[in-house]
Order: sequence, then C-alpha cells, then structure tokens
Amino acid sequence: MPVDEFSLIETFFRRPATPAAGVLTGIGDDCALLDGGAAGTLAVTTDTLVADIHFPARASAFDIGQRALRVNLSDLAAMGAEPRWFLLALTLPEADENWLRAFSAGLFAVADAQGCALVGGDTTRGPLSVTITAMGAVPANVALRRSGAGAGDLVFVTGELGGAAAALADMTETGACRTADATLNTRYWYPEPRLREGVALRGIASAAIDISDGLIADLGHVARASGVGAELELEKLPLCGAAVARFGSDRTRDWALGGGDDYELCFTVPPSRLAALEAAVRAGHLRALPIGRLVPGTGVSARDGAGQNVALTGTGYRHF
Amino acid sequence: MPVDEFSLIETFFRRPATPAAGVLTGIGDDCALLDGGAAGTLAVTTDTLVADIHFPARASAFDIGQRALRVNLSDLAAMGAEPRWFLLALTLPEADENWLRAFSAGLFAVADAQGCALVGGDTTRGPLSVTITAMGAVPANVALRRSGAGAGDLVFVTGELGGAAAALADMTETGACRTADATLNTRYWYPEPRLREGVALRGIASAAIDISDGLIADLGHVARASGVGAELELEKLPLCGAAVARFGSDRTRDWALGGGDDYELCFTVPPSRLAALEAAVRAGHLRALPIGRLVPGTGVSARDGAGQNVALTGTGYRHF
Repeated sequence: MPVDEFSLIETFFRRPATPAAGVLTGIGDDCALLDGGAAGTLAVTTDTLVADIHFPARASAFDIGQRALRVNLSDLAAMGAEPRWFLLALTLPEADENWLRAFSAGLFAVADAQGCALVGGDTTRGPLSVTITAMGAVPANVALRRSGAGAGDLVFVTGELGGAAAALADMTETGACRTADATLNTRYWYPEPRLREGVALRGIASAAIDISDGLIADLGHVARASGVGAELELEKLPLCGAAVARFGSDRTRDWALGGGDDYELCFTVPPSRLAALEAAVRAGHLRALPIGRLVPGTGVSARDGAGQNVALTGTGYRHF
Repeated sequence: MPVDEFSLIETFFRRPATPAAGVLTGIGDDCALLDGGAAGTLAVTTDTLVADIHFPARASAFDIGQRALRVNLSDLAAMGAEPRWFLLALTLPEADENWLRAFSAGLFAVADAQGCALVGGDTTRGPLSVTITAMGAVPANVALRRSGAGAGDLVFVTGELGGAAAALADMTETGACRTADATLNTRYWYPEPRLREGVALRGIASAAIDISDGLIADLGHVARASGVGAELELEKLPLCGAAVARFGSDRTRDWALGGGDDYELCFTVPPSRLAALEAAVRAGHLRALPIGRLVPGTGVSARDGAGQNVALTGTGYRHF
C-alpha cells in the first residue's frame, strides 16, 4: 500500500522505549522479536488485508487465502526467521461454505508448503477482512533488522520489481480480479515470501526489509532506522520484464519505486561481507541484484545512467 | 456473542491432528499453547471486535480500546497464563486524531496495569474493527485447558453472571452506548480479566474457560472437550445483583445462561483438590462460587431448586 496518513497512526502507539521484559525489538520493524528462551528468538508479525482496500472483494477465495498468508510470511522472511505457527482472524459478511472451503484450501496450500501450522483464530461476522498473526523462529542475535546498516554498505534486492503494482493497476483499470498476463498475475496474487533468502542472509546482511510499500518507502525505512541515507542507481533497477513489455519501462520503473506489493527483500551488505554474499549467491541460496548504496545523510535519492541526480516523489520519480 | 453459524466456520480450519512442531494445544481452546523452550509454554490468542457487531461503533474510543484488550487477556486468564505481549491490528475508516488518542489511552491503561507490552501491529483503512493477538507465559504442564475434567468434578464460577448481557440489552433498547446503571455499565465495558484467579487455579482446576458466549455454551465447550456432561443447579447461579434489581431474576438468569460477555472464569475441580481450592479462596486469591457438577454423558442440563430437570435452550432456559 502507498504510504499515507495511516503510517502516522503508529505515532499513537509508539511510546518512549520502556524496556518491557523479553522484548528485543518492539514496534517499528517487520516483526517484533521476543525472547523465546532456549527456543531462540521469536519473530511475530500481524497484518490485516481489508476487502476492496488491499484486494478485490470479488476475487477468488483461494487466491485471497493463500495471498494473505504469503504476505505475512514475507515479514518473517525480512527478519531471517523460519515460519512456525500462525493465527487467523477472519471477518466475513456471511458464512458461505463454498467460499470458506476455497479460502481454507488456499491458506493451507501455503501453510503446508512452508511448514507453518495454524494454531488458533477467531471468526466474526462483519465486512470481509483477513488478519493473520505469524510467528517464526530465528537464532538469537542473527535476526535481520531494519537498523544496523552503515554508510558504504551496498543495497540489493532479491528479484525484479514493479510486476505486482502493474497487475494491480491493470485490475483497477479493467475492474477484473485477475490480469490477463500470467506472469503479472502471479506477481500480485502469488508473491513468493523470500524465506530461504532471509535465512541465507543471516550473518551477511546488515539490514533487511520486505518491499510491501514500494522501494522508496521501504528502503527509506531502512535508511531512517539505520541513521543513514540511500542512493539508488535508477538504470540498475531490475524491472519486471512482463510489466515492461506491456506498459513500458517508464511506468514500470514508477511501480518499482512506489508501487509496492512485490514482497522481494531489500537488504544491505557491508563491503567486508560481499565475498560471503557472493558465495551464498553461487550456492544458489538467493539472487542479489545490486541497486545502490548507503551514504552519510538522510533520505533516499537516485541517480540516472549519466550520474545525474533525479528527483524522487513519494510514488516514483519526477519525469523531466 | 451468541453461538451461531460462525462457530461452524471452525470446521473449515480444523484438520485431523497432524502433530506440528512445538504445538502443545492447537485450535479449540481459549489459547494455543506453544513450546517456548526455557521460557515455558507460550499461550497465544487472537480476537476480533467488529463495530456494531461486538460493540456500538459510536461508543467512546477509550472504552473500545480498553475493552478490546481486556477481552483478549481474559483468554490468557482462562489458560492460567500471565500476560507478556500483544499485537494490535486496527482497521479504521479514517485517521481521526482525537479518536486515536482516546483509543490508545484506553488500550495502554489496561496494558500498563497488566504488564502487557504492545510489541507490534498494523493499521489499515476500512470498516472499524480491532483485532488483538495476546501472548502470555505459563509454566509447562500447568496450563488450564478445556479438556481434562472428569465426571464428579464440581463446577464453579469466579463471580456473578448476567450483568454484561443486561447492559448490552439495555444499550440495544435505548440506542445508547452506555447504560445508566454504573454497575451494569462496568460489567459490559470494563470486564476484569481473571488473570490472578487463573494463576491461582494452576494445579487445582481440572479444566477452565472464560465465559464469553454464555454459561451454557462455554460450559458446554468444557464438557465436550473433557468427554463428560454437566449439570447446573439453577438456584445456585450467582446472578448480578444490579441486573436483578433492574430487570428481575428471570431475565437475568437467562442472560447468565445464554448472554455472555461476563468474562468470569468457569472452572472444574476434582473432589481431591477441593481442600486446595478452599485454601486458595481463604488466601484471597479468588472467589469460587459452586454452580453444579460434571456427570457421565454429554451436554449441559439443569435442575431447579426442587431437583426437577429444567429444559435449557441455546440462549437460556425454557420457562414453563
């Protein structure tokens, strides 16, 4: 979702850090990190998907169910955690058996594939929305946070960007719940939570986040949490080929920068750990596509192929 | 909430028990119990409150916020767990600063009083609803479950019943968000999660549940999970005095049996542990009001003061 006033709401729930027992990381990262004792650190995240805000209400129930869990598991991936358990709070206007059968089939398809067990939940009557709380395990002290990166670190993403936002734009234009291009449809409805990649980045990445709001916003979170600035090289941005083929590279680049919903990881690596990253890439654990670097200062800026600064807007970059 | 078709939805999410790693108790109790290693057993619960289904949308934001957390902590109490952490998923039609300030004040008033830290959440735009996921700690093997009770065990509640449903009925009739009687208003809006009582019942109660759906429904859950029947003695039911004074004992008894929202604990104690219960009561740890006993068989039945069987309906008992 685009960054909007709702990000500001957090200010009402974030309080001066009062050290609460067992809380290693509280509000302000992809997951909370809680001290699970011998079980290691517990990563916990909750996300709500509201009908007709986060997905078309008339979409396939199977698609809604499986995507809701994928999106939550992506937050675990961004911490380097492995999924363990989840809870489902499902609000429905009516108890439609066919809808529920399809929704739960989608949900469990992902849960089973990822080894994440449904352990509880709540079903209520009301406007359709899906809230999932996902819990994962990560050995103490190797969890990936938004903070921890430094100037000079290189910035990478795990895959191509812009495809999910292209699909959403197409669905919005046509009023349909799917988009005709199979690749784009997959990018929006079946985003792959980068769990394997998150685990591979333990001990390598200095910071990480999943791209849900768009690269500018999410890299901006990392920069702010780490107390540095970030500089993107626009011509290096890996754009979703199917989106470029259909909508051109200018629109796709805007979607990559501001559109969100891709759920690739964006992560930073200090120069001293680039050899370890290269080894992980060669071992097939992940893709690491370089897109820029961290610099002293604040905020996210961008340069074009000629090395010229390019003005970024909240939702992309300003075309001159 | 009254038992309705939405209870049936669980059938779509409950699967043949496949032993998932670290899951001690999955779907079907007040909380899931997860193996937290050295930290003991982790109790986790999620509950959604939807505007105009579970509370009047126009009610005070402070009241909505504090009640949402109380209701979730009650599920921890029912497991004998102590609150540690919670996550908030808040869906709002608009970001109204005054509303948010009052809501968070209510939420934190309860969180601080109970030592439960907000560790994460999500804020989204949409029809007003509040989903809280609460996490608590309980030493391994002493958690209170719905199962575990046996025929011959006595049944108790921790306090008077019927007051919350009386308040809700009054609010529904008048269209107001509060009820004039202060005691009744407190019973609905400020239910006390029986956390101290739950901890005191570790090692004493053979089973426990919090009364959210009404005594018949909730005691029915205990009976079914434990493979026994339950027999209530109607004249022993502790009725909320303020409700009796205002609405009479017949209506109040129906509310006690079928109305819900009281959030007292209903628990069972085997004869061999009655002395331990008495000691805990004398020490001031809890109230234990006897209301019946468990018997061989299934379901919940009731007897009147003359020892005659009385037919129960889903929402109370049948008046002859």
